[in-house]
Amino acid sequence: MQEPITSSENRWLKRLRRAAERHDEEIVLEGPKQLSDALAHGMKPIAVFVRDDVEMPPGVEAKTAFIVADRAFRTVADTSTSQGIVALFARPRTSLASITDSGRALVALDAVQDPGNVGAVVRLAAAFELGGVVALSGTADPFSPRAIRGSAGAVLTTPVATDSASAFLAECARRGRPLFAAMPEGPSIADIVLPRDAVVVMGSEGRGVAPEIREAARPFSIPTSRRVESLNVATAAAIVIWELRRRTG
Amino acid sequence: MQEPITSSENRWLKRLRRAAERHDEEIVLEGPKQLSDALAHGMKPIAVFVRDDVEMPPGVEAKTAFIVADRAFRTVADTSTSQGIVALFARPRTSLASITDSGRALVALDAVQDPGNVGAVVRLAAAFELGGVVALSGTADPFSPRAIRGSAGAVLTTPVATDSASAFLAECARRGRPLFAAMPEGPSIADIVLPRDAVVVMGSEGRGVAPEIREAARPFSIPTSRRVESLNVATAAAIVIWELRRRTG
Repeated sequence: MQEPITSSENRWLKRLRRAAERHDEEIVLEGPKQLSDALAHGMKPIAVFVRDDVEMPPGVEAKTAFIVADRAFRTVADTSTSQGIVALFARPRTSLASITDSGRALVALDAVQDPGNVGAVVRLAAAFELGGVVALSGTADPFSPRAIRGSAGAVLTTPVATDSASAFLAECARRGRPLFAAMPEGPSIADIVLPRDAVVVMGSEGRGVAPEIREAARPFSIPTSRRVESLNVATAAAIVIWELRRRTG
Repeated sequence: MQEPITSSENRWLKRLRRAAERHDEEIVLEGPKQLSDALAHGMKPIAVFVRDDVEMPPGVEAKTAFIVADRAFRTVADTSTSQGIVALFARPRTSLASITDSGRALVALDAVQDPGNVGAVVRLAAAFELGGVVALSGTADPFSPRAIRGSAGAVLTTPVATDSASAFLAECARRGRPLFAAMPEGPSIADIVLPRDAVVVMGSEGRGVAPEIREAARPFSIPTSRRVESLNVATAAAIVIWELRRRTG
């Protein structure tokens, strides 16, 4: 039986805390559900950490498994979200080219800062089988712990790329992908033709999409009452993605 | 010039903290936007509290205005959400009868526990001019600080009632309102007839709606890929409310 890690200064726990904070090359998954989803999706953990009162989940190779004493465990994870299990993975990398290559509809997020909203949009993309999500500059990292939670783990099974608006626009142009963007002055989404390979950009609430995207894209809007200034970006994306699916099957 | 409140034990600040925590008879609004929305809507504050470095907002009557020193202010409000301004109001009360009386479509939430989701649904109801929202038992209070924030202030301008499922079902039956509920086995929402006065119940993610509602309501579903187990309730409500509006104008 392996000795539990008791020191919060253990090098693995330090590495885990750094990944939870920076989520650059390595990311942290929390809880048995996220871990089992990742394993089922063929992802290999760098390491799995289990609190000493919790059973090691199935499918975890012994050489990557660590048992951690409660006190030290609390320095790396929240009790309710982790349920005593966290895992370190290499950050999944999906290129813009491979996402646009699928020919399926895509959603791009421009400067959407709230990680919960970014996660919710990835969950919608998975639910309605889009080709993926592109997080443009200024958008919260889809692989932060909060975004992963907001996606209910869907970031692990859905292609998600991160790139600049200019690279994104160049790629869409090169592939001839029809580009749409949410803009308050655009016609209602109910009145536009949405092709099956549409790429739809959603901007941040209030500020909308960047000028270079406005210039390149066809505008549409979701007509709402003047009783609200804007919709939350995740609920707006839900309506857009539903319309894409409803009309193009 | 009024002397600022400097003690965190001041009776007004105690009352404010209690309202933020319990939000039963009194509720707390945070920030200049929520306050001005409430004033524009004809609501009268019980008291307005302004940090001593912030200007008193327009439209606040002198007899209800208090200036609060920074240190004491921090015991009642978060800096970023309040921007130095919080206000105490009597809790708005809307009866189930008055909401169902309007004849407009309604959304009811059954045991939706996340206050951010409850607020997001109220914001959608305002955006698409529904008659209102009914928060059934087990649903997070729509007037908690987090729900008010999630609604972007829309709880102040949208009728929101709280009642038991049995009172709600009796009221719908009495008025002959057609009742629908999201259930995984139901036909796609794209394939059902949604009348203009529909009342739609959304349950919590995973658990769905209560048995007594299942029995009384016509089922519908939002067809999604098996890559996700459920949709977030706010994004599911966005799709349902959009369909209601799109089809019935």
